[in-house]
Amino acid sequence: MIYFDNAATTFPKPETVYRAMDNCQRTFCANPGRGGHKLSLQSGRVILEARELLADLFNSGSPERIILTYNATEALNLALKGFLKRGNHVITTSMEHNSVVRPLKTLEKRGVDTTIVQCNEYGEIDISDIEKEIKKETVLIVSTHASNVVGTILPIIDIGNLAKKYGLDFLVDASQTAGLYEIDVNKMNISMLAFTGHKSLMGSQGTGGLYIKKGLELEPLMEGGTGSKSESLYQPDIMPDRFESGTRNTPGIAGLCAGIGFINSKGINNIREHEQNLTKYFMDGIRDMGSVRIYGTKSAGRQAPVVSINIGDVGSSEVSYVLDQEFDIMTRPGLHCAPLAHKTLGTMDQGTVRFSFGYFNTKEQIDEAITAIEKIAGGV
Amino acid sequence: MIYFDNAATTFPKPETVYRAMDNCQRTFCANPGRGGHKLSLQSGRVILEARELLADLFNSGSPERIILTYNATEALNLALKGFLKRGNHVITTSMEHNSVVRPLKTLEKRGVDTTIVQCNEYGEIDISDIEKEIKKETVLIVSTHASNVVGTILPIIDIGNLAKKYGLDFLVDASQTAGLYEIDVNKMNISMLAFTGHKSLMGSQGTGGLYIKKGLELEPLMEGGTGSKSESLYQPDIMPDRFESGTRNTPGIAGLCAGIGFINSKGINNIREHEQNLTKYFMDGIRDMGSVRIYGTKSAGRQAPVVSINIGDVGSSEVSYVLDQEFDIMTRPGLHCAPLAHKTLGTMDQGTVRFSFGYFNTKEQIDEAITAIEKIAGGV
Repeated sequence: MIYFDNAATTFPKPETVYRAMDNCQRTFCANPGRGGHKLSLQSGRVILEARELLADLFNSGSPERIILTYNATEALNLALKGFLKRGNHVITTSMEHNSVVRPLKTLEKRGVDTTIVQCNEYGEIDISDIEKEIKKETVLIVSTHASNVVGTILPIIDIGNLAKKYGLDFLVDASQTAGLYEIDVNKMNISMLAFTGHKSLMGSQGTGGLYIKKGLELEPLMEGGTGSKSESLYQPDIMPDRFESGTRNTPGIAGLCAGIGFINSKGINNIREHEQNLTKYFMDGIRDMGSVRIYGTKSAGRQAPVVSINIGDVGSSEVSYVLDQEFDIMTRPGLHCAPLAHKTLGTMDQGTVRFSFGYFNTKEQIDEAITAIEKIAGGV
Repeated sequence: MIYFDNAATTFPKPETVYRAMDNCQRTFCANPGRGGHKLSLQSGRVILEARELLADLFNSGSPERIILTYNATEALNLALKGFLKRGNHVITTSMEHNSVVRPLKTLEKRGVDTTIVQCNEYGEIDISDIEKEIKKETVLIVSTHASNVVGTILPIIDIGNLAKKYGLDFLVDASQTAGLYEIDVNKMNISMLAFTGHKSLMGSQGTGGLYIKKGLELEPLMEGGTGSKSESLYQPDIMPDRFESGTRNTPGIAGLCAGIGFINSKGINNIREHEQNLTKYFMDGIRDMGSVRIYGTKSAGRQAPVVSINIGDVGSSEVSYVLDQEFDIMTRPGLHCAPLAHKTLGTMDQGTVRFSFGYFNTKEQIDEAITAIEKIAGGV
């Protein structure tokens, strides 16, 4: 069994992640931040540890400004709906996931003006195309760090500088990069960073978060019990409680801590190098097959470990199905919840077969995939 | 170590819950509903199984109308903000948790009119007091099934009938009762039922949900990737995808399935009987201690297994601290995120020490608690 769907969720996780979650559940999983007994405090410390590890990872300082959410989608909804107001203008890219595009479409109905800047067929953006769209109502630029379809890395340092130059805020969707690429929210002028816990951060599903820079005021997406200022009928202002209503996923967050611990012990650069090597090896292995088309930059150094391909005119679902059934290789076909990206790549009808690699994948597995693709392509 | 904080989260969970979660994580935890490979499909089946188990438990039919959320707070925010519109009037009770009250306070700012019906000092409501408040703008009644502070069970059958009589919708917060009391959404005329997975349903934190009756149209709280209709920039209309953007907490939901399986195997009535017996035994044991005040109905048959007390004028936090430190008994002091309930009970200043029992608690543990309370009360 070969799992190449790590851009959807990494699998397997490090052994320490499994153990941390099971240990949490079995030995101390009370309700964090509610009550002051031993187990509640121990659970609370796990939540705090996650905030500290994430604040260190993103060099943000202020662990209390790391909001722990259900997933990146909640984080992006909170960021977009909490920040943007009627009359505001926001600029984003044509490589965004539906978790950015769909909330923006809802916000358009509420009087927010949206511009989607077109990327080229490799998923690359021209900074000057963003700059051209800035007007006096513009308050925010939103960009993915790397495309979930073809892995193309967007120039977030340059976009951050542009945002700074014009006094705009900058929201980055790091769903495909957090835990794999160095992210420094201060150096990169990132105002808000949305991330998921269950991809390259190696944690459990049911975890994610949003970093919110100091001074940025958002409206909460949800209100409720926060375990703080219980006497008030109104949502408290204190961070992170303002944005964390209801019980957090303590066992999942314990797993997330272990996942980040694993990354720190292996070294983020070593992990990335391994995955980039696999990406390069894979693309080199299929590059010259006549009927195989690779989308995106085709350069492992310029993309996350995500490779989208098609074989002739065969539907991506069919190829993915054959890979799974005949070769026991798991990939994801279709549009990957990012229709604008597929329009950009010219793959709206066919979709793509997406191979996404993780730390536990090996060169031998890539060899098997190359052989399988060769066989499928030979029959086309 | 004695854990009496089950109203915050049940601890421990059944062994089968731990195993289901660990097995899910280790053997098949891909992204459910994304892609069609073996592991994704297996993960998807867990999500579907949870919907089916919950639909059976609540006798709702239509598993696709069980929305799986992060927690009850998200479910309540979705229900209230998705349903109520400017100009609508909603009636609720003074026993609600802040997860109902705080979203309603936000909705008031958006032009929703709210009436909070006062309960008596035992947390009981007079149906005619609700009926009096119904006016032509009224569209919804919201009630907790049982108070999280004193356990008082609200007459949801009668409220449901009242709602039916006036053609109103009815939202029930079953955070303290789902998995412990029989809930039949059809018989009870419940339009929306919000629940958490990590309390009496015995599942993991990071799980909860909302049942939405057929024909009821809500606006989503969040939009994003749904793994369906990926070509559309707009949120799809199909259920449950419309309200489930982003990756679900598959391992947590696997645990929830095992938790419901545990309840079904033991029998919900047997579980409730055990917890009611403990509640009665506890109240009988402390009822006649001079300085101990019990709040609520003081009748185990009319309340969930939640007992709030105070000892003389000692602060609830101090009592809870002593119980934890000197007697290794874990309780929760303070306001329990329900200030209106405390105003109703007359405990706004002192808070209460809350004992909440679970299936794994024993009579011997209650004996220890009674002895501890006797000792603390003796020193007052």
